[in-house]
Amino acid sequence: MSAGRLPDIDDIRDAAARIAGMAVVTPLLENPDLNAAVGCRLLIKAESLQRTGSFKFRGAYNRLSRLDSDERRNGVVAYSSGNHAQGVAAAAALLNIPAAIVMPSDTPPIKVERTRGYGGEVIFYDRFGEDRVEIASVLAAQRGAVLVPPYEHRDIIAGQGTVGLEISTQAAAVGATLDAVVIPCGGGGLTAGCALALNASSPQTAVYIVEPVGFDDTARSLESGHRVANDPDTPASTCDALLVATPGDLSFAINRRLVNGAFTVSDTEVALAMSRAFRDLKLVIEPGGAAALAAVLSGKFDIAGKTVAVVCSGGNVDPDLLCRTLQTGTG
Amino acid sequence: MSAGRLPDIDDIRDAAARIAGMAVVTPLLENPDLNAAVGCRLLIKAESLQRTGSFKFRGAYNRLSRLDSDERRNGVVAYSSGNHAQGVAAAAALLNIPAAIVMPSDTPPIKVERTRGYGGEVIFYDRFGEDRVEIASVLAAQRGAVLVPPYEHRDIIAGQGTVGLEISTQAAAVGATLDAVVIPCGGGGLTAGCALALNASSPQTAVYIVEPVGFDDTARSLESGHRVANDPDTPASTCDALLVATPGDLSFAINRRLVNGAFTVSDTEVALAMSRAFRDLKLVIEPGGAAALAAVLSGKFDIAGKTVAVVCSGGNVDPDLLCRTLQTGTG
Repeated sequence: MSAGRLPDIDDIRDAAARIAGMAVVTPLLENPDLNAAVGCRLLIKAESLQRTGSFKFRGAYNRLSRLDSDERRNGVVAYSSGNHAQGVAAAAALLNIPAAIVMPSDTPPIKVERTRGYGGEVIFYDRFGEDRVEIASVLAAQRGAVLVPPYEHRDIIAGQGTVGLEISTQAAAVGATLDAVVIPCGGGGLTAGCALALNASSPQTAVYIVEPVGFDDTARSLESGHRVANDPDTPASTCDALLVATPGDLSFAINRRLVNGAFTVSDTEVALAMSRAFRDLKLVIEPGGAAALAAVLSGKFDIAGKTVAVVCSGGNVDPDLLCRTLQTGTG
Repeated sequence: MSAGRLPDIDDIRDAAARIAGMAVVTPLLENPDLNAAVGCRLLIKAESLQRTGSFKFRGAYNRLSRLDSDERRNGVVAYSSGNHAQGVAAAAALLNIPAAIVMPSDTPPIKVERTRGYGGEVIFYDRFGEDRVEIASVLAAQRGAVLVPPYEHRDIIAGQGTVGLEISTQAAAVGATLDAVVIPCGGGGLTAGCALALNASSPQTAVYIVEPVGFDDTARSLESGHRVANDPDTPASTCDALLVATPGDLSFAINRRLVNGAFTVSDTEVALAMSRAFRDLKLVIEPGGAAALAAVLSGKFDIAGKTVAVVCSGGNVDPDLLCRTLQTGTG
């Protein structure tokens, strides 16, 4: 199966050409007052401003646009905590491909509404009792549809890697030499794509990942050298977009070579980062999307005097949740 | 007094060079799904992402950076409903100039806190019983300080005009020919600067202004050919950043020549636009900053098939107010 070959920088460049004009080239924002407050030069890659509100559209569109006419006819099936769902549904709508999305029944309402708004068919499952991959696979087999995994595919990883390519180009355009890029990490597709892109375009740049406390599967996998799982009894973090059981196979094969370090953040640190993004950056960032910013703001590693790009990977947060966060996260 | 000469395009180009590296070149954002929803190509100039959270920093820095060393020593005095206050305080701090700001006592707390956070000295007055210009003028005279008005000065208008210059350059960079630019209008400094910049760089582009219902002094002044005042008994709009008594003298002299039309928006229309910006654009926009977007989204004029830039001029909204708006503004 073609998903087996690891993506490389040429796949990412191909993906960039393919999504051009469909995906938003999101800005790399800089806020001088925030720089002064943290004592380094922070460049914020605002993927919250991406089509569908997260980076997931990039990989989905890259994957779907490569399907042939027979594959398109029977449609696609995806499983997702929400952002990949919206990315697939929106990409499918643009390409006139039917899309069914298998979603956890406790998905934030805004993500369900939006997936349906893009024309996606939503099928719920119980995140604590059922296996989403199995449900989606059976459904795809029944329909003769193509399964579009959230990160376990070369085209998906290559699409997400265009974030890294843009960071590198945009940093150069403002005269910044990046010491590090910090990325929220769930299954690891965004990290893998960005790490590949940066390794090729900005090899002096270190790549750090950030995971929620209790969901540091990639950090522990990097440490042990093989993929390990999270404790299934860990209470859910607010970072719904980053909750996976284990790192992806393909993404981990890349990340184990190219990731320089890993950090974890608590829900409180994430809430403070969301509040800071709202108050100082005027950006709406969802919990998982704010993980990397939370690591930087809470001083997880020494960034004094450095130039650091922070990926804010999504903005699909329920207004009620953000408002509760703002009331408490005034740090 | 040098404030008397009207600014021209060379003043705006000079201002652009002067603020370079200090002000943020804010992105001109495009959201394909919003385009599809409104049936035109919308380009959002996100001045909410500007230093201090609004465009006001541009004019303030341009003005203050031109003061000589004697003037700098005695400091500056400004009067402002909030955003100009922050702009002046931040610019003054960067240039090591003491700044005192005369603010209405009902200014949203976030704007007071931030003005103080930038090192500004805040002096309150009663917006309904006292004359802020008089208070500020007396204070400036006592201290030998320079008065920095919010729009009645060539350097201020020229600084705000860099917004228009950037819109024109950024639109060209994405292959867009602008049919119109829509701008929130208070005293008219931002409008005047942008109108001058666009008239020179993109003369085919129409300039429209948007004011809150009951505060359409510029619209009525354009109609009558001379500056007219708002009824002082009009209840305040939520658009605190746009509440003035009359258009500025300098700004109106420019706007009467270069503004093509004017619209008003209700508080409800503004609330819906803020909610839309939050939900679909993932941007935090304050009420006054959302006025132009509100006019476009509520169908005040025919934009079908057009390419329209919308200035979202600021994002300094109290979290509580935005949260109340999100709860009600779900239209």
